[in-house]
Order: sequence, then C-alpha cells, then structure tokens
Amino acid sequence: MTKPSAKDLSHHLSVEAKSRKNSPLKGAFKYYNKPGITFLGGGLPLSDYFPFDKISADCPSAPFANGIGAQITKDDKTVVEVYKDAAKNDPANHDVNLAKSLQYGFTEGHTELMDFVKKHTDTIHKIPYEDWTAIASIGNTQSWDACLRTFVTRGDAILVEEFSFSSALETAHAQGVTTYPVQMDGEGVIPEALSEVLDNWVGPKPKLFYTICTGQNPTGSCVSEERRRAIYQLAQKHDFIIVEDEPYYFLQMETYTRDEKERQGKHVHSHEEFVKALVPSYLSMDVDGRVLRLDSVSKTIAPGSRFGWIVGQEKLLERFVRLHEVSIQCPSGFAQSTLNGLFQRWGQAGYLDWLIGLRAEYTHKRDVAIDSLYAHFPLEVCTVLPPVAGMFFIVQIDASKHPKFKELGEDPLKVEDAIYNRGLEFGCLMIPGSWFKVDGQTTPPQPQIPVDETHKHTIFFRGTYAAVPLDDLQRGLEKFGQAVKAEFGL
Amino acid sequence: MTKPSAKDLSHHLSVEAKSRKNSPLKGAFKYYNKPGITFLGGGLPLSDYFPFDKISADCPSAPFANGIGAQITKDDKTVVEVYKDAAKNDPANHDVNLAKSLQYGFTEGHTELMDFVKKHTDTIHKIPYEDWTAIASIGNTQSWDACLRTFVTRGDAILVEEFSFSSALETAHAQGVTTYPVQMDGEGVIPEALSEVLDNWVGPKPKLFYTICTGQNPTGSCVSEERRRAIYQLAQKHDFIIVEDEPYYFLQMETYTRDEKERQGKHVHSHEEFVKALVPSYLSMDVDGRVLRLDSVSKTIAPGSRFGWIVGQEKLLERFVRLHEVSIQCPSGFAQSTLNGLFQRWGQAGYLDWLIGLRAEYTHKRDVAIDSLYAHFPLEVCTVLPPVAGMFFIVQIDASKHPKFKELGEDPLKVEDAIYNRGLEFGCLMIPGSWFKVDGQTTPPQPQIPVDETHKHTIFFRGTYAAVPLDDLQRGLEKFGQAVKAEFGL
Repeated sequence: MTKPSAKDLSHHLSVEAKSRKNSPLKGAFKYYNKPGITFLGGGLPLSDYFPFDKISADCPSAPFANGIGAQITKDDKTVVEVYKDAAKNDPANHDVNLAKSLQYGFTEGHTELMDFVKKHTDTIHKIPYEDWTAIASIGNTQSWDACLRTFVTRGDAILVEEFSFSSALETAHAQGVTTYPVQMDGEGVIPEALSEVLDNWVGPKPKLFYTICTGQNPTGSCVSEERRRAIYQLAQKHDFIIVEDEPYYFLQMETYTRDEKERQGKHVHSHEEFVKALVPSYLSMDVDGRVLRLDSVSKTIAPGSRFGWIVGQEKLLERFVRLHEVSIQCPSGFAQSTLNGLFQRWGQAGYLDWLIGLRAEYTHKRDVAIDSLYAHFPLEVCTVLPPVAGMFFIVQIDASKHPKFKELGEDPLKVEDAIYNRGLEFGCLMIPGSWFKVDGQTTPPQPQIPVDETHKHTIFFRGTYAAVPLDDLQRGLEKFGQAVKAEFGL
Repeated sequence: MTKPSAKDLSHHLSVEAKSRKNSPLKGAFKYYNKPGITFLGGGLPLSDYFPFDKISADCPSAPFANGIGAQITKDDKTVVEVYKDAAKNDPANHDVNLAKSLQYGFTEGHTELMDFVKKHTDTIHKIPYEDWTAIASIGNTQSWDACLRTFVTRGDAILVEEFSFSSALETAHAQGVTTYPVQMDGEGVIPEALSEVLDNWVGPKPKLFYTICTGQNPTGSCVSEERRRAIYQLAQKHDFIIVEDEPYYFLQMETYTRDEKERQGKHVHSHEEFVKALVPSYLSMDVDGRVLRLDSVSKTIAPGSRFGWIVGQEKLLERFVRLHEVSIQCPSGFAQSTLNGLFQRWGQAGYLDWLIGLRAEYTHKRDVAIDSLYAHFPLEVCTVLPPVAGMFFIVQIDASKHPKFKELGEDPLKVEDAIYNRGLEFGCLMIPGSWFKVDGQTTPPQPQIPVDETHKHTIFFRGTYAAVPLDDLQRGLEKFGQAVKAEFGL
C-alpha cells in the first residue's frame, strides 16, 4: 500500500523562513569531490590538523540484565572506539569517522546516526505519510526556537497548554509571539475546550499548537489516544500545525497501583509489548504532514549530549535546514560520533532494551513518590494524581479549605505562596503551579471562554521523582506533607 | 593600575533582547544543593542513567616537535580520559566530569574550560577594561546569529564589509536586517570611507559593524593596527558596536616573499614572539566595552567541535546567556569535556605551541599557492595580493582587458562569469568575487558614496589553500591560470 504525500503547508511559513535564500556558494558545492575538478571553493581545514586520532567511550552492554543503572564491569561493557581515519574503523560498525564528524558539513546530521534515528522513529510511530524525514538539532529547546522562527512572526498568537514549560513560553514571548492557553484537566488539554476556542477565534487563526502531551511539564498529565485523535481532527479542520515536544515520551510507566503484588505483574517484557504499551503520538496519526515532533536523547541518554531531532514533512524541514546552516550548523561531532557509536553497537533492539530499563526505573521512582504522598499528605485537602509518564507529579490542594482563606481575600495564590514558604521552612521545595500558568493576552483579544467554577480554588505544586535518590525523595515528601498539614492546621 | 569599567550600552539592545525575562524557576534554583532542603524543583535525570562511564581521546603531545600534522606515536601522545564519577578524575587535570558535562546547566560554559579560554584571551588581547567575560557558543555562525538577535530588530541596518561571508549576510537578511557595505581595498575596510558613510547617514545610525578583520572572507585582507584604531574611534564617535568575527585570527603568517632563503629566517620562535607578531584585535583597544569578539576552535582545532565563545562586557553578555537558555542551552558536554581535557593537559603554553605550528603550516600553504599564481597566471591582466592571514587568497583581474569586453557590454560580471565557466572547463573551481558583494539597499536609502573609478573594471576570484593537499593546489592553480589565459587569448 502506498502512503499519501504530505499536504502543502508552506502558507504557514514565517516571514523569516520564507525569505531564507540558498547561498550561491552552495551551488558551487556540487563540484566538491567531482573527479577532474580541483575544488578551491571552501574554507575547510585539513583533517590532518584535527588533534584527535581516536575517541572512545566505556558504556554498558545491552540487554542490561542488572538494570540500566548497574555498574559497568570489565566483562560486560561496550567500548565505543571511533578513529579519525575512516580506514581504521570497522565498516560493520557504521561509525562516523572523526575526519568527517569534526569537519564542516552535514547540517541535517550525519547519515549513519540519522538513519538509526529514522529507523527507530519508524518502529515507534509508523508514520502514515510518505515524504517525512528527520533532521538533527541541539535538543528540544533549540528545536522549539527553530519552530518559532520557521512558523511565526512578531505579533502572531499560538496555542499552548493552560500550564506549560516556562522556558518554552519565554522562547515564544521574546520573539513577540503571544501564547493562548487551552484548558486542561488531569488528562491534559480538553479537545472540546480547544474546539470552542477555535470556533470563537477573532482574527487570523493560530498557526500552531505547542504541546508536551506525554508526561506534561508541569502537570505530569498524559493525553489519551482518543483525545489526541480529536485534537488532530481539530488541527485539520482549523488548519494548524501541531508541535509535539516529547522529551518524556519514553518515560511512560505502568498505571499506578497501591497493591505491591499487582505491581510485580505489570512490567513489559518484550520489545513488542513495550512499543504497544506506548500511547500513540500525534505523528503516528499524521496523514497530512502537519505534525512536527521534537525528540531528543536528553531524558533517555543524557541532556548534556545536546543532540535531538525534528521529525516532519520534508518540505517544511528543508526550511529548518536553511535556518540551521546560518545558526547552529549541526550538533557537535564529538556527540554525533559517540552517540552513533553507542547506538550502532547496541543496535535498534539494544536501544529498546535500554528504554525498557528506563521504564522500569521510572515506574519504581513514581511508585515511591506516590506512596509517600499517600502516606504523608493530608488527603482531606490534597488530591494526588499519579502520573503515567514523565518526571513530574502534582499535588492538587483545595485552597478554600485553608483556615485563613477569608483573611487572605479568598485568593488561592496567597495560599499557594504560604505553602511554598512553609515547605521551604520545613526543608522541601516544590514548585507552585501558578508559576507555569499561561496568561492569555493576545492581540486582538479573544472571547472569554467560561472558566471551570468547580476548580477555581484548586492550586497545585509540582514535584519530581527524577532528580533525587529515593530516600531523599521520601524524606522530602514527608517534610512537605508536614508543611501542608501545619499550614492547614491539621 | 585599575582598569575602567565598560560603558552602559544597553540602549543598543534589540526589542527581543530587552524583553527577555528571568524565569521564576531560576529563582527557586538558589535552593538547589542547599543543605537541609530537599530540592524537588528541577527535571534533571540522575547521572546514574547516563550510559557513559568514561570517555577518552588520543591526541598529539605539545610541543609538536615534528609539526602539528605529524602522526601520533605510542611514546608521544597525550591521552585525555574523563570519567563520569568526579572522584575518579585526577584533580590536577581540572577535568569536567561527565556527571556534570552531560547534565543540564552551565549555559555560560563549564567553569574549567571557560577559565582556560579567558586566560588565553587575556594573554592574547590584554583587554583594557575591567568587567569583561566570555561565554560559550556553538561556533561563530551561532554567535553571530545571537548578536543579531541581541542587538537588531527587523528593519534595522548594520554596517558590513563591501565583500563579506555570504552565510553571515544571509543570517542578517532573513532577520529582516539590511546590510550596508563599507568600501574596502587590499587592506580591508577603509576608515575614511566608513567615516564618510556615517557622517552622511540618514535616519538612526547603524548599531553595529560586522567585520572579519583578519584573513577576511572572501578577500583574504587583514586590517592594519592603524586602521583598526581609526575605526575604533569612529565606533566611539558614532556609538556603534563592533562585532569582530575572528575565526582566522590565529592563521596569521609571515609576510610573503618570493625569496626561498628569506622564508627560512622568518618563523616565530617563542611564545612572546608569536603573541607580538599578531595584529592587535579590536578587543585589545576596547576601553568602552563596545566590541564583541567571536572566537572558536573551528579553524584551530576542528570545526565539527561546535564550540566557540563570545567575549565582551558582562552586562551585554548576560542578555546572550538569557537567549542561550531558551535556544541552544550550551555546547555539547562531549565537546566540552574532551576539549577541556585536551587544553588542560596541553596547558596554555602547549596551546600556543599548537598555534605556532598552525602558523608555520599555513605560511607554507600560502607560499605554495602564491608561488603557483606567479608561475601560472597572466600577470598582464591579473594582480596577486598575497594574504598575511586566513585561508583565502584572491586574484584580481582587469576585465577591461578581455578581448570581448565591448561585445559583453563592458560588463565586468559577464567576464567574471566567462572565466568561472572556463575554469570549470579546465578543471578548477574558484569562487567569483561578485558572489560575496553586498548590495547596499537600506530603508531609508543612504546617500551614494562616490565609487572608486580606478577599480570599476576589477573583478576577482577567491581561492583557498586550506582544503587541498599541496600538489592538488599547484595543479589546480595551473589549470585555472591556463583558463584565464585562454579566456584572454594570451
């Protein structure tokens, strides 16, 4: 069965993206390495002068029988060795030799590594249209900056989740783009709310919707397949692009249960089970080519790698390549040679093993965190929403139950502030939800969408189980629970 | 003697740069690692899950007695080894352990590496004001993109050299910035021409001047100290910022001589001689803090490192840090740990040895190229301008001497095109100078500055001696010389 081609969405390009030209110099590069032509066109230093003969890395070996955090042993390790000289590398490894990775060029990312990434992408998302590709980025923060530069122009408005990653919002705001919040509940953005917003939109419709749909930052929510399909249909109806920023996609977990025994039976065992257990991405339902997926190794391998990739239709990604040529050029060759070296030696199956190991670790961390919340937080004022993905959990608190609620002018934010400070006093820091709240000012202003009255006194705090050892996590949550109790006189 | 402080130049910031806010989350980070506080604020993965115990690199050892391109031997090599676990690294090496370099954070660049870079900067430039600093970048292309975003807003005009690096111009044009060309001669921008442009400027004066002053791309020219001082005074008088994009700064050479014997005596021998032989940078004369210097390892170590740095006054660079936080974050940890490992083991002196070696190599390459030009090009129509810095040389050609000049409508560009194609036919590609020509359209238009009539029929071709082995270089130039002769019927 042949797949459909992507729709032409070039009308969504920004003034900046539309105006990018190909350099005439690029035209000359067709003569580079052409037999019979001495090419004196480009200012590339000779690789003879790169002071690196070989780089190497000591890594764990798949399938990580003792867990992904286990100590590497002499007998069980994968050594990545990449030489400058192509001839010294074993062709079976598909390495990116240093003469290539440390040279200029390959804005799209090195072929070997990008082929690995594309194969992985295809395994997970089974993209339903033909002409998709993936290009390298410096990680999702940079990818998102590139999306804004490619699609929006100062004065435009975009759609975002009601609570969102402050840094992503700041990227947009500094570019003069206003962010319009779409109402969320415990399962992320509500399609009906999004539909209402768009039906009542004043002025040119927003070009894109930015969403962290799996293990959302800050709410920890995960949008269900059903909601994703409904939202994708809205994207088709109202012709907008979906940017899915998905660093936490592979930190999906088993659903939380307080039953220790039940937990044992819940792990995924095979690659097939693992892939099947993942919530379908917007990319996987993208028949039009209107989804840009931002992926990276920041949460699966290491954030400081500064390596990520953008998946989308070829015609739109070509504009990103033009942008990257005149800004970041490409991710570091040290990162590309090393990561590619690791991926090639692990293979597709080994990387899935690693991700399965990650799933087990995060499921356990999440369980410890949620157990602690149930044990130490006053459930008469707190609601625990066990996440099924990501690094974050939230505790919702009914501010109206605060003994001084009236004195505080019935302002939930004052209660939030008091709890934050009380937490610090007791020795634990969690982030107030209001810090992530998106203000909805756009030009022109949009009609007021009715507010959910039942939740107007609900505040929340965001915590993470990712960054601290488990005993610290338990101790910290106990302290924060005591702080909440003290604040509410419980 | 205490140095002066930088002038307040914040009025030059762009709309985008002025509007960047600190995230409230950053405020919470003061509690990170604070004793007594369990910090559940940030989504940082545990370094236990970074699948790299150690990275290493095989490198040449200073002082590179057999030249920088010599084969590394078993007995004479520097091995960089950097562990994830800080405790496993020898503190004497000042390594950036992988638990740190592969984690989030350190937008300014890692302290150990940036301290090395700053010390190196101070040795070379002896910056005359107090509150300067350096922050990491992904290389000069990205640094320049960041400069534009920090200082200019759509519709602004900036000053550039009459011929300039097409990619740098494209970065500006796509951001809606017009580039006004300042007249050059064989020694780069002419201060008197710049002065005239600014005295006659219509509308708000340009905020910045972008210059590749050493080994200019494409002309290969190097601006003298005297001219730099004159231009710096113009920057003070007309209150603009100088962005010196200096990838080729350390590819400075001895002046060209056709006398083989004289060449032998010309090499620099000590670190002091080397530093003294470098043309003073704008940074070295910057008493106001109005210079931003873009430096990188792309031409001295390897371009694919994607590591560079921006030097300038602290108050302006703070705005760059805010931009980097929401775009690139920082250079790859693989690059930072490896480069820092190498620099720490070589030491400041070792890096100077490397740069001295580089100087010798490029001097030799330049000599071979210029010798070939004199041997094979028709000097009755060609002028050779031996460069003293960089990777590029140009050959000027008097188009009016072309036998069909009248037939071609006295259009030098038609002669240029004919020579380019004839070059390809003969088997050598050099880049036509007009491809680098800056068009001077600004809004509002600026008054016409008189054109130098004596050169209006001069065209030029850019070549490089950097990218090809010496025998190819000689053969290529012989072919191009024959093509020029054929074209001119000589």
